Amino acid sequence: MSVKLLLGPSIPGEEIELLRKHAEVLLLSEMGDGDLDAVLPKIDCLLVHFWPERLDAAKVSKMTRLSLVQTGLAGVNHIPFGALRKKVVVCSNAGGFSDEVGEHAWGLLLSAGKRVVKFDAAMRRKGFKPAPALELGRDILVLKGRTLGIVGYGSIGRKVAEIGKAFGMKVMEFSRSNAEEPGIISLRGRPGLERVLRESDAVVIALPLTKSTRGMIGEKELSMMKREVILVNIARAEIVDEGAIYCHLVANMKFIYATDVWWMKDGKESYAPELPFLELENFIGTPHVSGPSAAVTSAPQRRAVKNVLRFLGGEEPLNVVNRSEYA
Amino acid sequence: MSVKLLLGPSIPGEEIELLRKHAEVLLLSEMGDGDLDAVLPKIDCLLVHFWPERLDAAKVSKMTRLSLVQTGLAGVNHIPFGALRKKVVVCSNAGGFSDEVGEHAWGLLLSAGKRVVKFDAAMRRKGFKPAPALELGRDILVLKGRTLGIVGYGSIGRKVAEIGKAFGMKVMEFSRSNAEEPGIISLRGRPGLERVLRESDAVVIALPLTKSTRGMIGEKELSMMKREVILVNIARAEIVDEGAIYCHLVANMKFIYATDVWWMKDGKESYAPELPFLELENFIGTPHVSGPSAAVTSAPQRRAVKNVLRFLGGEEPLNVVNRSEYA
Repeated sequence: MSVKLLLGPSIPGEEIELLRKHAEVLLLSEMGDGDLDAVLPKIDCLLVHFWPERLDAAKVSKMTRLSLVQTGLAGVNHIPFGALRKKVVVCSNAGGFSDEVGEHAWGLLLSAGKRVVKFDAAMRRKGFKPAPALELGRDILVLKGRTLGIVGYGSIGRKVAEIGKAFGMKVMEFSRSNAEEPGIISLRGRPGLERVLRESDAVVIALPLTKSTRGMIGEKELSMMKREVILVNIARAEIVDEGAIYCHLVANMKFIYATDVWWMKDGKESYAPELPFLELENFIGTPHVSGPSAAVTSAPQRRAVKNVLRFLGGEEPLNVVNRSEYA
Repeated sequence: MSVKLLLGPSIPGEEIELLRKHAEVLLLSEMGDGDLDAVLPKIDCLLVHFWPERLDAAKVSKMTRLSLVQTGLAGVNHIPFGALRKKVVVCSNAGGFSDEVGEHAWGLLLSAGKRVVKFDAAMRRKGFKPAPALELGRDILVLKGRTLGIVGYGSIGRKVAEIGKAFGMKVMEFSRSNAEEPGIISLRGRPGLERVLRESDAVVIALPLTKSTRGMIGEKELSMMKREVILVNIARAEIVDEGAIYCHLVANMKFIYATDVWWMKDGKESYAPELPFLELENFIGTPHVSGPSAAVTSAPQRRAVKNVLRFLGGEEPLNVVNRSEYA
């Protein structure tokens, strides 16, 4: 009896053909609800990008044979862990987007630090008159010799660090890893996090969203940071407390929050946040474009498929998620 | 008889004291026109930041003893070479701003490539609805593996190249230098320039403005470039032909021109250009903040003073300008 694999949307055609050599492939998009209900108890593996709305808790409860969930995204916070049986192995696609997301972090950091967004908008207004040159210059963050803090040091954090070193920055990373790296200051535990926040001129959040990172940057943490600092988020919005960051931005005009990720409303990232961030001069936003700039090449999708093939071939899959951090 | 040194504005006080140990220092800002006329024929050295308006051709013609002009700026295109006697040695402050200006080039390049300026402005408009994720992603320039062209490979160009390598880009430089560098593709002469323009996904202009670089990027050169490309200018606006780039931007919406430098009007950089660049979505501008972000530390000014001290001590000064390229 062959392995049955259910695929969500956005897997490239040639990858589907590859999978068909090792499994019976069923496409979610081609199945009616009746067919789907009939087949769910027979599915062994599930490969999805973002978790499909159709697979609600009732449907998931019918997947009694399911042993592997592979997601095309690097983050797995969209997966309904509570509904999945305990035996199900969940694999992320961590590392699949690191170059592009790391680059985007630098796009946000420099757009903020070099005041490009602010000045470009100001110059477009009628009657723009610049401040004297030295005053303009004082407004700019010069990176060389300044401190870059990276909160979360996986493959995205490492990419961000490499660039920071090339800019001649002092790079600090906060993570749970035991490894230390030459040229990088590794900090651990709550005191480590606090030191990163206190000493950095720019901080990049590159953590997964888990039970313990949700709301990790709140009022207390923001108040530890320098008054003139840039906080970049290319991870998940919910790591930063929405109300706390809004109040902090209003009260500290030299603090800049630059983000590619947005708080969820009704299960979806909302580009119209509850609080009027988009009226603030010290806020910079892009509509979650970092991951998609990787996905256009299909390289992350191919990587996810490769991991499913490992599993189908009897090997240990990579990027197995510690479910206790999410459930 | 001691050496007489005339100082323009923006030299830090402690540097003036240092100079006083080796020369009789006269401050332009403290002299009336009568005093100035009396003293000009006795001046040996002149240290200025931007060339002072007061020192017009009539005044310069009176400086018969003048042997050194040192400028605090890296570019010397503001100096009235035509009015200066042939024997006058002119020194630039090349290298004094390289880290900050190189960083700013990256600020412009990434603000453009990652579409931060465009998306931030779009999101602030009421009723913003993003395109589907993959379409958004296709709009973003991913740097890794792409080609960075650097036109002019002095200390700013080198700084830009270092960061480009850290991003995993293929780096090409066009210059007159004979030196070659590992990991950098060196191209020379007109065919070299054309290759850089044809093959690059982003081009940074880092040349001085001289007789031969004025208008160097015109209609013909722009037409050689890729249709989707970013042209960054942190050098001098006049290296790019104003009319040609405007027409090119209007006709090629995927071509982005991101600049910190502006064309001159009445002897001054004008932030209100003749043509309506600031209405274009594929134009990004900052009001010449890159150099000032270095000058706020006074490090460039100290560097210029150091070079004057070399000269006063009988050493060959650094950064002597080839006047035939400017006159």
